[in-house]
Amino acid sequence: MIATVRHKVNFYDTDAMAVVHHSNYIRWFEIGRVEFLRAAGITLNQLMADGYVFPITEVSAKYVASAFFDDELVIETIPEALTKVKMAFNYRIYRASDNTLLVEGHTQNVFTSKETGRITRLPDKYYDKLKVMMAL
Amino acid sequence: MIATVRHKVNFYDTDAMAVVHHSNYIRWFEIGRVEFLRAAGITLNQLMADGYVFPITEVSAKYVASAFFDDELVIETIPEALTKVKMAFNYRIYRASDNTLLVEGHTQNVFTSKETGRITRLPDKYYDKLKVMMAL
Amino acid sequence: MIATVRHKVNFYDTDAMAVVHHSNYIRWFEIGRVEFLRAAGITLNQLMADGYVFPITEVSAKYVASAFFDDELVIETIPEALTKVKMAFNYRIYRASDNTLLVEGHTQNVFTSKETGRITRLPDKYYDKLKVMMAL
Amino acid sequence: MIATVRHKVNFYDTDAMAVVHHSNYIRWFEIGRVEFLRAAGITLNQLMADGYVFPITEVSAKYVASAFFDDELVIETIPEALTKVKMAFNYRIYRASDNTLLVEGHTQNVFTSKETGRITRLPDKYYDKLKVMMAL
Repeated sequence: MIATVRHKVNFYDTDAMAVVHHSNYIRWFEIGRVEFLRAAGITLNQLMADGYVFPITEVSAKYVASAFFDDELVIETIPEALTKVKMAFNYRIYRASDNTLLVEGHTQNVFTSKETGRITRLPDKYYDKLKVMMAL
Repeated sequence: MIATVRHKVNFYDTDAMAVVHHSNYIRWFEIGRVEFLRAAGITLNQLMADGYVFPITEVSAKYVASAFFDDELVIETIPEALTKVKMAFNYRIYRASDNTLLVEGHTQNVFTSKETGRITRLPDKYYDKLKVMMAL
Repeated sequence: MIATVRHKVNFYDTDAMAVVHHSNYIRWFEIGRVEFLRAAGITLNQLMADGYVFPITEVSAKYVASAFFDDELVIETIPEALTKVKMAFNYRIYRASDNTLLVEGHTQNVFTSKETGRITRLPDKYYDKLKVMMAL
Repeated sequence: MIATVRHKVNFYDTDAMAVVHHSNYIRWFEIGRVEFLRAAGITLNQLMADGYVFPITEVSAKYVASAFFDDELVIETIPEALTKVKMAFNYRIYRASDNTLLVEGHTQNVFTSKETGRITRLPDKYYDKLKVMMAL
């Protein structure tokens, strides 16, 4: 299932080239990921309270067109791969007003124990919810 | 004693008006504060390991002139008041190349127990070091 | 008239004290200001296209309580003063779930010519719209 | 030639997992890139004054280990490819205290006319300086 969420470009997201600074899209992938997990019935707060953190191990982005201040963006988060120790997502960010594709991206994160800092297997109560979402 | 630290303006600190976004100076006051504490022989990491956090309760800034990409800034941190439960600082941020005053600011923070979230008295091992710095 | 807008706390807005970093509220005042202007029928893009910029000259904030990742915030923007050369706003940011007041703030900005960098009088086509909003 | 620059992790760079938020490294690649250009005798301000902008078209990063508040980082920028219309860099970010590799990354940017927004050929006065740096 693709999770979709909207985000409006703030003035503080722009840079001296008068476009959105490219690093912000990496942050907005996170908004998409959080929304995907929420749609699966999982909140990061629960995961953290249970002792799991989920550091990003890889990120990439291709920038196709610029976004500007006040643009309404559509962030699509597409699950790519899931195991009990890691997860990969693809992203597409569009401008809502004209459907222009702005950025395509990819992330991978691993599930890690907050206590030991080591990679750990996600328990079934979370894994099963994610598996359902992957299949939808 | 006034603590002084330099910071170069990055491209990502600018906005679509081609100047530094005003919110960044609030972040740079933090760089100054951390430097002041370091000069006093205190690191935030030690404080946090000891169970203290130090949330900001007040901040203010007057913006006098704009900084631009690649400007070298001088951040001066001037201690204003110290008790065992709170600390206040004033700040002056200059452009190094021409000594232009850019921003004047003020912050207040309280010492808080990480565990309870409540305001707490700073132990003497920290307080005494800060008192010495205030008097220099 | 008070302009109201909602903003969800992103993970990237938090810091190592596991709360929203205090500098972000200064950014969120901007979201409120933009919304106020929009409600008045003015967009920053129009103003800039017309040759006006609107640098912040003063900002202040009192931090009452912390916001956390995933909190839904309500940003209220209350106009305080308006002349043809400057504008002042007050802000109140609440947590939507429990109505806790988190931050109160204030900003002042001046209208400036993009070309000369000097303070300039806002033309009536903008001023009149703002005056109407102040009176509502 | 590899350009090297140092950057200290600020408190505001951390997130609620108490490590540097992964998006910040993308910003720090920019610090490295700017430093590389400076070493080549080129400032972004000159380029922009001459009507060139240099949007990022691709970015990627692999995250190997976490950085923490107050870590001193070493950012290495390694030129990978140069034509008159685009440039590619690789990056390595280390922790200075123990030489731990934290992040490896890559960016590509194109030279674009500020006026038309279209890809343009970099004039020889800039291209030649960059070519020299590539060969060193």
